[in-house]
Amino acid sequence: MTIQIRKLDSGEAGFNNKLTALLAFEASTDEAIEGAVARILHDVKARGDAAVVEYTNRFDRRNEAGMAGFDIPQSELQAALDSLPAAQREALQVAAQRIRSFHERQKQELQGFSYTEPDGTVLGQRITPLDRVGIYVPGGKAAYPSSVLMNAIPAQVAGVAEIIMVVPAPDGVKNQMVLAAAAIAGVTRVITIGGAQAVGALAYGTDTIQAVDKIVGPGNAYVAAAKRRVFGTVGIDMIAGPSEILVLCDGTTDPDWVAMDLFSQAEHDELAQAIMLCPDAAYIARVEESIHKLLPTMPRHETIRTSMTDRGALVKVRDMDEACEIANAIAAEHLEISAENPQQWADKIRHAGAMFLGRFSSESLGDYCCGPNHVLPTSRTARFSSPLGVYDFQKRSSVIFVSEAGAQTLGKVAAELAYGEGLQAHARSAELRLKQQP
Amino acid sequence: MTIQIRKLDSGEAGFNNKLTALLAFEASTDEAIEGAVARILHDVKARGDAAVVEYTNRFDRRNEAGMAGFDIPQSELQAALDSLPAAQREALQVAAQRIRSFHERQKQELQGFSYTEPDGTVLGQRITPLDRVGIYVPGGKAAYPSSVLMNAIPAQVAGVAEIIMVVPAPDGVKNQMVLAAAAIAGVTRVITIGGAQAVGALAYGTDTIQAVDKIVGPGNAYVAAAKRRVFGTVGIDMIAGPSEILVLCDGTTDPDWVAMDLFSQAEHDELAQAIMLCPDAAYIARVEESIHKLLPTMPRHETIRTSMTDRGALVKVRDMDEACEIANAIAAEHLEISAENPQQWADKIRHAGAMFLGRFSSESLGDYCCGPNHVLPTSRTARFSSPLGVYDFQKRSSVIFVSEAGAQTLGKVAAELAYGEGLQAHARSAELRLKQQP
Repeated sequence: MTIQIRKLDSGEAGFNNKLTALLAFEASTDEAIEGAVARILHDVKARGDAAVVEYTNRFDRRNEAGMAGFDIPQSELQAALDSLPAAQREALQVAAQRIRSFHERQKQELQGFSYTEPDGTVLGQRITPLDRVGIYVPGGKAAYPSSVLMNAIPAQVAGVAEIIMVVPAPDGVKNQMVLAAAAIAGVTRVITIGGAQAVGALAYGTDTIQAVDKIVGPGNAYVAAAKRRVFGTVGIDMIAGPSEILVLCDGTTDPDWVAMDLFSQAEHDELAQAIMLCPDAAYIARVEESIHKLLPTMPRHETIRTSMTDRGALVKVRDMDEACEIANAIAAEHLEISAENPQQWADKIRHAGAMFLGRFSSESLGDYCCGPNHVLPTSRTARFSSPLGVYDFQKRSSVIFVSEAGAQTLGKVAAELAYGEGLQAHARSAELRLKQQP
Repeated sequence: MTIQIRKLDSGEAGFNNKLTALLAFEASTDEAIEGAVARILHDVKARGDAAVVEYTNRFDRRNEAGMAGFDIPQSELQAALDSLPAAQREALQVAAQRIRSFHERQKQELQGFSYTEPDGTVLGQRITPLDRVGIYVPGGKAAYPSSVLMNAIPAQVAGVAEIIMVVPAPDGVKNQMVLAAAAIAGVTRVITIGGAQAVGALAYGTDTIQAVDKIVGPGNAYVAAAKRRVFGTVGIDMIAGPSEILVLCDGTTDPDWVAMDLFSQAEHDELAQAIMLCPDAAYIARVEESIHKLLPTMPRHETIRTSMTDRGALVKVRDMDEACEIANAIAAEHLEISAENPQQWADKIRHAGAMFLGRFSSESLGDYCCGPNHVLPTSRTARFSSPLGVYDFQKRSSVIFVSEAGAQTLGKVAAELAYGEGLQAHARSAELRLKQQP
């Protein structure tokens, strides 16, 4: 079992082009998938429950006469939780409590505001939760209970009244840990449907499912295509690309730790990306040795080898300052700063989904139970977007309460600008409120 | 000049279906536009500046040899500001100052946080501005200086270092008020390019334009299609639908005022929507009279008549409580509560882009100079999205700094869950940090 890892040096000619090529990832659009999803959505919109039942029976090899057969009662969720081994149940509960605690801070931060001007005019911003959200949870091999916690708890903390989880159950098989997580996270309804038909049912509503305001959560290419298409009718979260880790290391961390951190990203799938930046060539060689040594011990070594070979890299940099510059260009989903006094380097980072500081902060701790969300911006989108959070389940409304005195001064300004833009009704609407009609 | 306005009554049979039909608006996708935009974007990505120059010369009837010819120097922006009539210049400056002041409050509200747990683990959330944004400003008839202020000032307040405005100048004609607004709003560069080619240049970058992180601002169907396509490479704001106003009136406001408020929305374009809800049938008749009386005085009466006839409505409701319920279902972009003691009704509203309370708060004051943003969620998207704000030009990064002691407790929880999900490298990565190796 051998593994060839790309090694780059920031001092070599053409380094920037090589790095750009390494990072390049373009989600391909599959016309067959697009067409199928368009048809399914159209059908669900037109025929509602009947279409959802048909597609689910066909794609998931189910045999239900109506929608009721796909619902999982709350008692079954609780039973799933009770049935878990104690250690697993407690781990889920500790994780949920910590995630809730972090997200409560987000809620506290965003309270809205209101202020009164000298003339009595009141201006403000009000924060309110969404009424109803849908959470998509994949079935099968990528069924992750941690993902249920990370998507549902922020919605619950935001104050969303109805949290509807859809999770396909191919052949009727359900994941007990996923159901247990739903019980802990305060999901209000669980329906075992999936694919584009589930996205359509949530977005448009049916006789048995009320339309939601937003759909979040990961899914396969059909689910991603369906979410893109219903965007606008409902809100959606980001369409996630492959997961990435970037490790900035000063060469003082046990190389086995760094190697395993790279593996923990690479084991997700063959498109995952694991990159280390380090100024110490000798240390890079030691990490490479650790990779060769540890790879055979990994059950998912096939995936790790493919992803590390195709998309991984060990990069020799000039110094840690340059490593920070490169990290800002990469804008990684997960950024580990595995170094002495990591804060000095964190202060130089402008773009990252989540930063893990110090050698004890392995990404895997954050993936499960530190508290911050593990749904993070991928593919350089951390330049302009944020981790999933309570704020994704809230929205703002502006509040404007102009006093009679305020209308006198503001009205003249508004009318002047409205006439300048050729919008006379705007101008007249402002002028009608003036005591002295112009 | 006559106008037929739809009148509905919430007590009549089929009211809900009529309301749904009235609100229905689906942005059509034009395959010819989609194809043209895909080709232009591909070309700009491949050939950069050369393609932008060619398209701009062709579509805008310009004749420039290179990109430099499209740039407007800062001195020309300042000259445009100086050249405005004093009243117009001062109105722009007052509006800008008020917009800045409101948006500073948004910035103050979002400061990030950090907290230390008993074992020394530090968790937090950091707020940073985007590096570089593009602002699209339409040329021609829809060139609105107020839109420049509303899009650029939040970016400036957020701390965005580079604000690049693109505004087409067909036949070389520039709008002085738009350039003056750019000077006031702190735009760092103005380029007279537009259409899909401008969106492509901003998203992908060229030799003379550095790629931005986000593109905001309104545009025609080509611009909207281009923004949708580059989403993911860069962030974008919402694709706006037609503008809407919903007036909740208790029947105590001068009917001319309400009629003119409805006109101020209807004059935007033929797809704009203006609806009033009122429990007082006699008052509704008075507003209708005002509409007939005032329409002929409006320079844009053609647009107003079409939009009010096709998409407007005067709705008799049972009482103001029912009006609030209906308003929540409509989730209007602009909601005027033109009533005595409007706060009692505002407290019942869950979904609205901006709320205008009391009879002096005409929407037009908010459009120009109250301070809150006039870029608001349309087409019922206020259920899940917010006015444009400083937060659209900032993003969050999670910060996780686990202590050695923290890694002992968190590591066991993470490993338990990771093994449960079949992700062994995640588990091992956590376990390697334990003092007592399992």
